[in-house]
Amino acid sequence: MIIVTTPDSTEEQVQHIIDRIKEWGLKAEVSRGAIRTVIGVIGPEDAIRERPIAAIPGVESVTPVMKPYKLVSREFRGGNSSPVKIGNVAIGGDDVVIMSGPCSVENKQQITSIAADIKQAGARVLRGGAFKPRTSPYSFQGLGEEGLRLLAEAREETGLPIITEIMDTKHLELIEKYADCLQVGARNMQNFSLLKEVGRSKLPVMLKRGMSATIADLLMSAEYILAEGNFNVMLCERGIRTFETYTRNTLDLNAVPVLKRETHLPVVVDPTHGIGLRDHIPSMALAAVAAGADAVMVEVHNSPELAKSDGEQALMPEEFGDLVQRIRKVAEAIGRSA
Amino acid sequence: MIIVTTPDSTEEQVQHIIDRIKEWGLKAEVSRGAIRTVIGVIGPEDAIRERPIAAIPGVESVTPVMKPYKLVSREFRGGNSSPVKIGNVAIGGDDVVIMSGPCSVENKQQITSIAADIKQAGARVLRGGAFKPRTSPYSFQGLGEEGLRLLAEAREETGLPIITEIMDTKHLELIEKYADCLQVGARNMQNFSLLKEVGRSKLPVMLKRGMSATIADLLMSAEYILAEGNFNVMLCERGIRTFETYTRNTLDLNAVPVLKRETHLPVVVDPTHGIGLRDHIPSMALAAVAAGADAVMVEVHNSPELAKSDGEQALMPEEFGDLVQRIRKVAEAIGRSA
Amino acid sequence: MIIVTTPDSTEEQVQHIIDRIKEWGLKAEVSRGAIRTVIGVIGPEDAIRERPIAAIPGVESVTPVMKPYKLVSREFRGGNSSPVKIGNVAIGGDDVVIMSGPCSVENKQQITSIAADIKQAGARVLRGGAFKPRTSPYSFQGLGEEGLRLLAEAREETGLPIITEIMDTKHLELIEKYADCLQVGARNMQNFSLLKEVGRSKLPVMLKRGMSATIADLLMSAEYILAEGNFNVMLCERGIRTFETYTRNTLDLNAVPVLKRETHLPVVVDPTHGIGLRDHIPSMALAAVAAGADAVMVEVHNSPELAKSDGEQALMPEEFGDLVQRIRKVAEAIGRSA
Amino acid sequence: MIIVTTPDSTEEQVQHIIDRIKEWGLKAEVSRGAIRTVIGVIGPEDAIRERPIAAIPGVESVTPVMKPYKLVSREFRGGNSSPVKIGNVAIGGDDVVIMSGPCSVENKQQITSIAADIKQAGARVLRGGAFKPRTSPYSFQGLGEEGLRLLAEAREETGLPIITEIMDTKHLELIEKYADCLQVGARNMQNFSLLKEVGRSKLPVMLKRGMSATIADLLMSAEYILAEGNFNVMLCERGIRTFETYTRNTLDLNAVPVLKRETHLPVVVDPTHGIGLRDHIPSMALAAVAAGADAVMVEVHNSPELAKSDGEQALMPEEFGDLVQRIRKVAEAIGRSA
Repeated sequence: MIIVTTPDSTEEQVQHIIDRIKEWGLKAEVSRGAIRTVIGVIGPEDAIRERPIAAIPGVESVTPVMKPYKLVSREFRGGNSSPVKIGNVAIGGDDVVIMSGPCSVENKQQITSIAADIKQAGARVLRGGAFKPRTSPYSFQGLGEEGLRLLAEAREETGLPIITEIMDTKHLELIEKYADCLQVGARNMQNFSLLKEVGRSKLPVMLKRGMSATIADLLMSAEYILAEGNFNVMLCERGIRTFETYTRNTLDLNAVPVLKRETHLPVVVDPTHGIGLRDHIPSMALAAVAAGADAVMVEVHNSPELAKSDGEQALMPEEFGDLVQRIRKVAEAIGRSA
Repeated sequence: MIIVTTPDSTEEQVQHIIDRIKEWGLKAEVSRGAIRTVIGVIGPEDAIRERPIAAIPGVESVTPVMKPYKLVSREFRGGNSSPVKIGNVAIGGDDVVIMSGPCSVENKQQITSIAADIKQAGARVLRGGAFKPRTSPYSFQGLGEEGLRLLAEAREETGLPIITEIMDTKHLELIEKYADCLQVGARNMQNFSLLKEVGRSKLPVMLKRGMSATIADLLMSAEYILAEGNFNVMLCERGIRTFETYTRNTLDLNAVPVLKRETHLPVVVDPTHGIGLRDHIPSMALAAVAAGADAVMVEVHNSPELAKSDGEQALMPEEFGDLVQRIRKVAEAIGRSA
Repeated sequence: MIIVTTPDSTEEQVQHIIDRIKEWGLKAEVSRGAIRTVIGVIGPEDAIRERPIAAIPGVESVTPVMKPYKLVSREFRGGNSSPVKIGNVAIGGDDVVIMSGPCSVENKQQITSIAADIKQAGARVLRGGAFKPRTSPYSFQGLGEEGLRLLAEAREETGLPIITEIMDTKHLELIEKYADCLQVGARNMQNFSLLKEVGRSKLPVMLKRGMSATIADLLMSAEYILAEGNFNVMLCERGIRTFETYTRNTLDLNAVPVLKRETHLPVVVDPTHGIGLRDHIPSMALAAVAAGADAVMVEVHNSPELAKSDGEQALMPEEFGDLVQRIRKVAEAIGRSA
Repeated sequence: MIIVTTPDSTEEQVQHIIDRIKEWGLKAEVSRGAIRTVIGVIGPEDAIRERPIAAIPGVESVTPVMKPYKLVSREFRGGNSSPVKIGNVAIGGDDVVIMSGPCSVENKQQITSIAADIKQAGARVLRGGAFKPRTSPYSFQGLGEEGLRLLAEAREETGLPIITEIMDTKHLELIEKYADCLQVGARNMQNFSLLKEVGRSKLPVMLKRGMSATIADLLMSAEYILAEGNFNVMLCERGIRTFETYTRNTLDLNAVPVLKRETHLPVVVDPTHGIGLRDHIPSMALAAVAAGADAVMVEVHNSPELAKSDGEQALMPEEFGDLVQRIRKVAEAIGRSA
């Protein structure tokens, strides 16, 4: 950690800063410049990361040297990746995995028909919401346990493992009975109670980036889950909020190579929510693969205009089939498979 | 709702759109332009707000005419405000109410001393966190029930009603035993399970705006609480996330007059988190009052450099006392009191 | 254009709106709802786009139906693309064109050596700045005419056509003597005097998206150039400003498919400035091609740590050569060449 | 400047960094930690600010210690402010100055009538655009020299000094003949050619913050003007671009106390463009004064619905008169006058 003093800091203030550092068990290395003094703090930075050093009189800025995340960092795995398994599908290896399904589970016919279609087209994981986070209290809120049951039936018929969203700590036990993977949505990325709870689950977790979460915030939220003992975590880029209004969100593909560098966790991209415009989802899915994503998640519906949620951004099964073919070509072009 | 078709939409597509609108029980008024067709949907817009109309082939854009929020809208109260009471303190009337206290409750001495200081200075509500949402799992997470107990003791000694944050649906019953007002934090603004739960509480709720939440999002989240029957809701602007890095967040005072126009709920401003720089908090608190805020919430600590959280942005009690005096003058200048 | 009135608008106000519309030569179609009145304006929207209709008492919202851009719109070309030629290199056809070169021209040895290297590796257009927009007045501001002369010499030696930035209307004549293509930088995207000036040039223009420009803003700025008669315009996505601080900017690849849909102009992507981190530029370049970019522009320097500008984000010639090979594979995977 | 190495940096890389620092004439102070090495650079930071140190192999991060701006910094004036005079009106002293006028000069009757009205109400500087930066090439672009002439006539009649926008280096001489103060608009904040040109003028300059400019960017752009010798510069906050769509821009009042701390230059706030909604401009003007602004600029039109630009956000003269009264009360409440 590097502390820089204000131009008008007094000698007593500088000494007080040094004393505090020593009190906390670290060493201070002091360089006095013509205008400001620079104090390098030597020793384990974690010990003082939480201290409000900037509140000490005479301090102008405090710059950490170490990253605040540990368990999720690539260094923690010695530079290696750590693939995650959903059922028997490994994410984070050479294969680019395609996950698909409807936004919400609506009824048996809908979910089993879509599951069969996407399986046929090449998807390897089935998604579908039973508990839905909706902006409006008057919108369809999901079928709850009935939705989970229907998902399990679709798994029975197709063999596809299932991923579904958890919104409340109270639902963990229930969802664990049915699902193969838990999803924590963008709006709950900093619901720390929920993060701790899924950190105690045996199931793998896909953590979606919040709409205004920096990459560092996302990693810190993942750190919560690993800190509770669950290392089977995937990170999902799904669009951030910017000033652009043409697209629903701004899918931030820059996060893909950055995350691959910073963490050993697999990286998933969700172009559906990311750009939010049906016609442009395939382009963004291909770009995600070229950028290095380990998996892509794309919403499909067999009758978008009658969907109970997000119909505007669902692909039709045949469009999805076409996209899978194109993804395979791009994956091969960069030396992977799909 | 107004539907505009694409330039290349066919007559059949237009007819299909009209048929759907009739199916849903509304009336379509069609204006055929040279290039695009405009379809006005007449009737209760709520009936079709959730329909994925943009997914219907031939549709270019869908523009709602009605606001998506109802219970929170100013129109719902016939243009009047609806003050909320925390204990016996009314927020949303002529008085500008000042709330204060430390970020976290740390120990008995700390909270009772600060409570006495801020009461003396002119604060009318005591804040303090027992359950803390922290970016890092390694940071101080709050004292939990012990913190609530200490808050209640500080209320006993000072008479100040207390507001504290709830982070998990499981904690509602516990917190209700101690608090006078619940706070839903920015990171949980779209934790819809939590919103429903506090909507069933007898306590008033202060809902903070999420870091990337639009004003409309904030109103929709409040709508969740009112829809469950709890109309004692205050909205709190506490800074949004922008590209600016000098300040911790960008306190968006524009939201104050906009909210006062759109909703009957009282508006609170939290300059402490909003700008996040101790020296500049007083300026923003004064600006908040001038902009029309019904209350301001300012963090105070008696020993900022030893605080367990947010010490960098806490005022000292004497600085707070000085600020209260200045707030009173500005409040009077705009015809209110404080 | 669709005008919606406020709930409390009076009959006289509605009539006044209708009268204004008629005065302006258009037709008003009025639908009176229970709460608001909706007025559809029939006729050429351009005639009233600039009118401050929202300033008329009783108006709640004004929604345009037509796009504000004309000459740049895809419809204007009947849905076709219009490739642009820099020297004899066509951009916007089946080939994905690779442009490269240093940030700034520094001296003869530097520019001719880099030009030879990138030509050899597969680049087809040479970039290099002679007039540099720098955040600080104390930074290297470019060699001016000397830089242009050196660029022309590098063209002589390699046959690569050159693109260079224009920052001031006063420099047009000078730059036209040397360059094959003008670049208008992100910071000048809404320098309307400059746009008009380059609109009167015979040279093609590459217009970069401003850091906070929406896609619609970018198209409107291009419209300025076309409106002056110069239709040889390319648009360049180069990163927008968001809250993310890990990357220098947020390269917005969502803009690629959107622009390809909205306009007939070719789309270039600049991953160098877009992500601003040397190690991650190749991933973003590949993603740009997969997303559908017609060209990519990548900065190369033969001695980045001694570069006079942007050394942190320049690739070495051998890294660039490797990237070109990978771009070719991805281009082929999506049915193009490079 | 503080350089931190990557965890895997070699001893040779560290030595190479130290050698470079010495080559550049500075001293390196090296602290070897368990994982990373921290190198403090001692000496005048300006000498190496422009060096691409991050491009040197083994470097993980580079943190400047000094501010990049000099002439504009508050320290440069020993902590004092430096008021600017427009005609005989001083901005930056105890008085809060109110500037007003229409967006564009439209004709003689319009400008002289508005000028008389605002003078009467209490405005002390007249604004009005003769060269207008408009998003669309089809919008009214201003009257040019004729507009300047009309402004000068309005000054003749009212005695109010005038401020008007310059968009092109070619127009400086012309505008200098008529105006008392130059305005550089938000879209030209990083038009460095223009900044240098106005830096050579004898007239004072009001520099508006760009829509995506950080506070540091704004100060660096001002530095360009001072570096050319013109120290009569005011900075103007006029709204930044965020994700919020209810308001036209997000007026960032946080910038006011921050700028007052960082620079000796006066700070102006433009709530008209900042929030962009007529009804809410007064609230934001009052908040700007409470936050510490030295001047506010508010647009007024005598017939907003017929205005040639920005009619939606112009106050009527009587609304403006009322606002001036309210501003005076708030100014007094914080110990200033208006």
